[in-house]
Amino acid sequence: MKTIEGGLCAVDNVKAAGACEDNYGVAIIHYPNSNVAAVFTSNKVQAAPIIITKKAVENGKLSAIVANSGNANCFTGMKGVENAELMASQVAENLNILQEDVAVASTGIIGRQLPLGEISKLIDDSLRRLNNSSKASRSAAEAIMTTDTYPKQYAVETTLKNGQKICIGGIIKGSGMIAPNTATMLSFITTDIEASPEELEKALKKAVDKTFNMVVIDGDESTNDIVLMMSRPGQGKIDENFQEALEYLCSQLSKMMAQDGEGATKFMEVEVKGAETMEDAKLAAKSIVTSPLVKTALFGADPNWGRIIAAVGYSGANMDPDTISVRLEDKERSANIVDHGKVMAFEGTEELELAESIMEREEIKITVDLALGKYAATSYGCDLSYDYVRINSEYST
Amino acid sequence: MKTIEGGLCAVDNVKAAGACEDNYGVAIIHYPNSNVAAVFTSNKVQAAPIIITKKAVENGKLSAIVANSGNANCFTGMKGVENAELMASQVAENLNILQEDVAVASTGIIGRQLPLGEISKLIDDSLRRLNNSSKASRSAAEAIMTTDTYPKQYAVETTLKNGQKICIGGIIKGSGMIAPNTATMLSFITTDIEASPEELEKALKKAVDKTFNMVVIDGDESTNDIVLMMSRPGQGKIDENFQEALEYLCSQLSKMMAQDGEGATKFMEVEVKGAETMEDAKLAAKSIVTSPLVKTALFGADPNWGRIIAAVGYSGANMDPDTISVRLEDKERSANIVDHGKVMAFEGTEELELAESIMEREEIKITVDLALGKYAATSYGCDLSYDYVRINSEYST
Repeated sequence: MKTIEGGLCAVDNVKAAGACEDNYGVAIIHYPNSNVAAVFTSNKVQAAPIIITKKAVENGKLSAIVANSGNANCFTGMKGVENAELMASQVAENLNILQEDVAVASTGIIGRQLPLGEISKLIDDSLRRLNNSSKASRSAAEAIMTTDTYPKQYAVETTLKNGQKICIGGIIKGSGMIAPNTATMLSFITTDIEASPEELEKALKKAVDKTFNMVVIDGDESTNDIVLMMSRPGQGKIDENFQEALEYLCSQLSKMMAQDGEGATKFMEVEVKGAETMEDAKLAAKSIVTSPLVKTALFGADPNWGRIIAAVGYSGANMDPDTISVRLEDKERSANIVDHGKVMAFEGTEELELAESIMEREEIKITVDLALGKYAATSYGCDLSYDYVRINSEYST
Repeated sequence: MKTIEGGLCAVDNVKAAGACEDNYGVAIIHYPNSNVAAVFTSNKVQAAPIIITKKAVENGKLSAIVANSGNANCFTGMKGVENAELMASQVAENLNILQEDVAVASTGIIGRQLPLGEISKLIDDSLRRLNNSSKASRSAAEAIMTTDTYPKQYAVETTLKNGQKICIGGIIKGSGMIAPNTATMLSFITTDIEASPEELEKALKKAVDKTFNMVVIDGDESTNDIVLMMSRPGQGKIDENFQEALEYLCSQLSKMMAQDGEGATKFMEVEVKGAETMEDAKLAAKSIVTSPLVKTALFGADPNWGRIIAAVGYSGANMDPDTISVRLEDKERSANIVDHGKVMAFEGTEELELAESIMEREEIKITVDLALGKYAATSYGCDLSYDYVRINSEYST
């Protein structure tokens, strides 16, 4: 497996484009007659585009995606659903595909009607620019940004067990409202594996569960989250190598999203191992990256490891203070904070000095070993900064 | 029922005192041969004082409480337990009571050994000052403060159904790490009702469930939370009037704690009604006060009600976007934001202007009516401000 250029368009025959103006953006992805798999928000309030797209993917087929930023088209009633349908129909007519094969996604403020004039113009602009290039994929990634600070795309190439090469590409927007399940995270993935919609869905769900669902920015869960994976039969069938490459792609997109979390100055990767069950490993890992006290300590470069242990303690996971170990790492160094319940980094020790120095870094790995079993899980998160407060207290005004 | 002066010492024969120096404080409450009820943190990591106090209250009897701030005495191993025992024994010897009848509570940083010299000196200072006065209760409340900005005490007097008058007094410290269950919240309550430890516990648990457990500052749960209620048989037996007064006292202490949340500039009371079950009402109410997006919107005085509805949507409570109503209120005015799924406060409406003006206030009430059933619950919280980030990123350095 290797990282390649091109994002969505690393895959042959995928065309993408994006257009932005003022506070709005539109991205279009055209990949006719694909099989499709989808993961949606579990929020009980569902935006109009979610309703439309659930229907569109029902038969496992899709030809295009149209996504807008700047307005979530959520809590907008029947008019919202009509507006989402208008977005789909404009794309379908122009590309000469069925309207029911167009997925719609939206992100932005809740409770306001879509500014249809502006969105329609941006759809036209995007349609004119559709192209199979890395730049086109990047412009689609840029068009769906809200508080993201840079467009996010990634692509990998792997060799299937039958010897054939296959590409998987993706774009993502995230930043706020991520977790507990997915987020107003929008992510679109393309590939050319031969797989039924059911096989695609199985592969996607497994990957999402290990990656996107383990990212926490602030613990809020959006009304608009969508992950869509489109595939056209090409190079071979799903095997372990494909699954590994898909999970790697999703983990790279997840890390980018966490690193670019709203106001984030630091990125943390948290691995909890030695858990009795997989559920315990996930609970503990997510509890640490969600804790406002851990997040503010990260922002302040404060090796206040008691907050990490407290977050494990209230996570619901089985844990024993006498067996737990905690380690802080950057790319070169590792500080042994707590070893099987024994504090190693207390005042005056070199270990504490090392921990303080590691906490100054922009990327920090926290490893917690519960020493109770064999399960492990990794979560991704960021610090809680003044800028998070600024961005979110100014959002709608 | 009426509010009275005196805090803990509104109750006859309760003596209290507090002493502070540098970063540490010690409070002592002396109420010999009381019956006692307790609620503890459910965090699996439990501080040394929690271990001691669980043992002390096992037989339902207590004579004194000694509490310190500045150090949590948590994750401090056997030495931590010995230090907590030393605190209890110093108080027991001096007051001529059994060591096993002394409860210990601590709040502050995790993972450092207690500075026993300083704490011991402050215990002596407090012991010398023990007194039955409002000022003494207030000094105890002050001594257990960490990031609180003012000492918190409250007392009520009510008339039992048999015509006799009874007092209940309490102090609380909170600010950070509050919820999901209790917090490094420490709260001590005194009264003089005739009740077995079991009866006291039943009354206390019921009150805590409706009040302290509905306060959310940041969603972290402490390793050190304790609520203790001491009572000496006096004026009569527990009845509905006593229960109502106890719940009122606890709700007043809860509100003070939320109003004085770390860095808080605003207070919110959230009532969710029309829920199908009590569990749903609580889930939805706590989800709203916990949401970082609602909290930052409150800080920014931004009537971004979509975030309130989204928080209900992901709370796990049963809800229907087509029946939900949302209302914002201050003490004089009320803005109808969403009425049975219909948006009332959209751009250009007077309702939105009113909502904006209400969001400028320091105390805001949010009412959500799910219109699905008859259950209601109220939660208390505060905004998420720059100061929350500052306080918690600087804490241990």
